[in-house]
Amino acid sequence: MSSKAVFYHAGCPVCVSAEQQVLDLVDRSRIELEVVHFAKNKARIAEAEKAGVKSVPALVVDGNVMHINFGASMEDVKKAVA
Amino acid sequence: MSSKAVFYHAGCPVCVSAEQQVLDLVDRSRIELEVVHFAKNKARIAEAEKAGVKSVPALVVDGNVMHINFGASMEDVKKAVA
Repeated sequence: MSSKAVFYHAGCPVCVSAEQQVLDLVDRSRIELEVVHFAKNKARIAEAEKAGVKSVPALVVDGNVMHINFGASMEDVKKAVA
Repeated sequence: MSSKAVFYHAGCPVCVSAEQQVLDLVDRSRIELEVVHFAKNKARIAEAEKAGVKSVPALVVDGNVMHINFGASMEDVKKAVA
């Protein structure tokens, strides 16, 4: 099965570390992985929240949210990029 | 680079869901993935705590801990398997 995964982050140290780990782990031959940096793409915040993202970094795979460690809450992300 | 990853869990619903996602995501051709269920292997609890695991489910990759969502704290795990 081919899947789509989106890694959402906000550039925080915890995010950057998790991003590297996710990039290393994911089987890119089967999974299309997109990285979204909220500070560079504010318009994607609503989409992430709708998917259930409560904090960053988070990886959404086929609609399932994996919150990976804790960098910042979505509330703090929204304040930071406002 | 070939890596070693260990997924630690305690059989909780959040753990089981995350386990399935991790099994689906990880590139098994490059990464050796071991799944450790604490209730079935209490002896591995100390090892996980030493690696920095604070809650389950967690994935430790080459010494780096990724806490994935939140199922239970390690304190609760220890009480449950005592």
